Amino acid sequence: METVAENLSGASEERVVSTVTKSHRPSHPFSFEIFRNDPSGARLGRLRTPHGSIDTPAFLFCATKASIKGLTAEQVRRSGTQIILANTYHLSLQPGGETVEALGGLHSMMDWTGPLLTDSGGFQIFSLGHGGVAQEIKSRRGSGEGRRTLLKVTEEGALFRSYVDGALHMLTPESSISIQRRLGADIILPLDECTPFHMDRSHTADSTRRSHRWERRSLEEFRRHGGEKQVLYGIIQGGIYEDLRRESCAFVAEEDFFGQAIGGSLGGEKSQMREIVDAVGRMKHPTRPTHLLGIGGVEDIFRGICSGVDTFDCVHPTRLARHGGALLPFSLSEGKGHINLRSGRFATDRDPVDPTCDCLCCGTVSRGYVHHLLKAGETLGGQLLTLHNIAFLNRLMVRIRSAIATQSLDSVKDLYLR
Amino acid sequence: METVAENLSGASEERVVSTVTKSHRPSHPFSFEIFRNDPSGARLGRLRTPHGSIDTPAFLFCATKASIKGLTAEQVRRSGTQIILANTYHLSLQPGGETVEALGGLHSMMDWTGPLLTDSGGFQIFSLGHGGVAQEIKSRRGSGEGRRTLLKVTEEGALFRSYVDGALHMLTPESSISIQRRLGADIILPLDECTPFHMDRSHTADSTRRSHRWERRSLEEFRRHGGEKQVLYGIIQGGIYEDLRRESCAFVAEEDFFGQAIGGSLGGEKSQMREIVDAVGRMKHPTRPTHLLGIGGVEDIFRGICSGVDTFDCVHPTRLARHGGALLPFSLSEGKGHINLRSGRFATDRDPVDPTCDCLCCGTVSRGYVHHLLKAGETLGGQLLTLHNIAFLNRLMVRIRSAIATQSLDSVKDLYLR
Repeated sequence: METVAENLSGASEERVVSTVTKSHRPSHPFSFEIFRNDPSGARLGRLRTPHGSIDTPAFLFCATKASIKGLTAEQVRRSGTQIILANTYHLSLQPGGETVEALGGLHSMMDWTGPLLTDSGGFQIFSLGHGGVAQEIKSRRGSGEGRRTLLKVTEEGALFRSYVDGALHMLTPESSISIQRRLGADIILPLDECTPFHMDRSHTADSTRRSHRWERRSLEEFRRHGGEKQVLYGIIQGGIYEDLRRESCAFVAEEDFFGQAIGGSLGGEKSQMREIVDAVGRMKHPTRPTHLLGIGGVEDIFRGICSGVDTFDCVHPTRLARHGGALLPFSLSEGKGHINLRSGRFATDRDPVDPTCDCLCCGTVSRGYVHHLLKAGETLGGQLLTLHNIAFLNRLMVRIRSAIATQSLDSVKDLYLR
Repeated sequence: METVAENLSGASEERVVSTVTKSHRPSHPFSFEIFRNDPSGARLGRLRTPHGSIDTPAFLFCATKASIKGLTAEQVRRSGTQIILANTYHLSLQPGGETVEALGGLHSMMDWTGPLLTDSGGFQIFSLGHGGVAQEIKSRRGSGEGRRTLLKVTEEGALFRSYVDGALHMLTPESSISIQRRLGADIILPLDECTPFHMDRSHTADSTRRSHRWERRSLEEFRRHGGEKQVLYGIIQGGIYEDLRRESCAFVAEEDFFGQAIGGSLGGEKSQMREIVDAVGRMKHPTRPTHLLGIGGVEDIFRGICSGVDTFDCVHPTRLARHGGALLPFSLSEGKGHINLRSGRFATDRDPVDPTCDCLCCGTVSRGYVHHLLKAGETLGGQLLTLHNIAFLNRLMVRIRSAIATQSLDSVKDLYLR
């Protein structure tokens, strides 16, 4: 099924050094080509899907409930976005996979003509279900708040309560694949168990192996229907334990997944997260497209790229915007990486949010206007900042790709980091 | 100051039958030309301002706090909007006239390059201040709810509490003009007293004459600064009493106002409102641009136009959208003039919101998607409907203007009304 052509040394951006496709037929609509492997560990690639190609490294913005909050699909496109992500958990509960299918699938329903990824629904079930430990799973300590909605995890799947109406639902590897077929994203993910970082080695090992069994069931369900409209990534689990991560990398690499995603707990601190991603980067399948789930800070992106990560997703840039935060190069943000437009010091500031940006927000309105909108409770304030943050990250990724091609990644780092 | 050339009979749309300018110099940036007076009472005109011309009849959408809720200025423009309105009451309290001035004035601050009107702030002070009688003043019975924030009305002005922080503010005819100069709209309005419809004749007469004294003070304050950047409309008061309306029409016509607005109580029922607007239409200055304040139902627009009204404003189309309502021709909405997309019957409906519309909403997404967004609490649902309702009304006004030009207003009425 899979073709791999590798030439990791002496790569130039002109030449394809590695290609992964889903079949020997070059007409298959999915492929992943690596044009250059940088000594830093970063790589330059292109992921081809039936809805267009993505130049990698790339960032996926979250259209959780089939909408990048407050923006039309056209605005998202015009901000330079190549690919977005939607959440199976939310969409399976509201409006439901069958309704999305009746509306023509996610692409047609949302008027999103580009590539799309859906997750399995597992992350939200487990992170919401454990009662507010979403942040903990992703390496940050949770607030401890939140309602426990996860009722039972068995070999079969996960039993949980809907956050919409409290109804009981069972999500299994098979039902997740089935729902994601209805949603119709280009790239889909298998159900895995997401455990909090404080789980011990023995429980993490059990959980990782259960995830592997679920991933194999997902592949079988995926193959039963066939077709060339979607590809399935495997998910690398193993928590904070390097030997379990190695085991999981080997499992995913051996199975017939088109790509791989780094999931599960990444530890309690940034440094631990980076160590884990770096270790997984060395142990993962070398030529498959690699996605890092739920990580999207600018510094983390640079680190991830040097661990061989091709794509990232995170709600951070869009959520930050709704709270008044605008991403900026470190040099323009007093070393913080963002400014908060709710601050009174911007009330009469006629400068654009980011003087180096040409997005719809920065090209048309001032910091003072955005400040006013945020203070007056006008949603347009958050929308304009969302447009900016998306454009900011998309431009960052363009610069990173260009820098990998020209072996100058450090100079881009200097622009964005301290 | 004012040039009036009238030729009310035998008008054709090719010939200017009436022109009002603010001076004898044709270079003055404001003028109002009437191209055709229809036997129905409707008229076709063009209002020229320093920020461009408005073909009339026209509709003004409400950017209450300097934002058409949820839309960028570019989206508002692309929906065919000629002119918008912002509210002095809200903006004077947050962010304040001086801040708006520091941000370059409303046009620059909002990135709105077209014509703009601000009201005096009086309507909100009086409607909020009486405790929820905003709707009553505009002819509909209020809910009786709301906090009384109007503390005292004297010959000097109105003392009220800020809805933002509870601070005391005094609005006078002079301070309203002064704030509106800072805001910088093309068309501004004088402070008037807005009384509820149940006020008796004697009190209404006193109130109307006080409004006249306030309007004269407004004119004096307006003249003290001079300039050609703004024009002042007079406001016709008089409540539901025809003789008082006649007195007010005469007062406004005698004073040096560029245009005139129909304000104050329009009665307790639609039929009474239409009688009053019709009577004012006969008694008002015949060639000045005439605005009907706060009225925007489709049927009311047709009626108002036949009473010689040139411009309308109302929050109805944008507020309706945020609650899930889409304006439609009567024939497509079971005779109601709108449909509510929150209704479950639209859940899997793949048709556009309005199959006859080519706006960004109707051209790209389905009723089912808008329904999903509304039910899921995604602001994009209301934003898409706002885009549609604005485009719907702008297209209605285009059709009305075309119909006046071709003496076929009845055929457009048939399309939109029962």
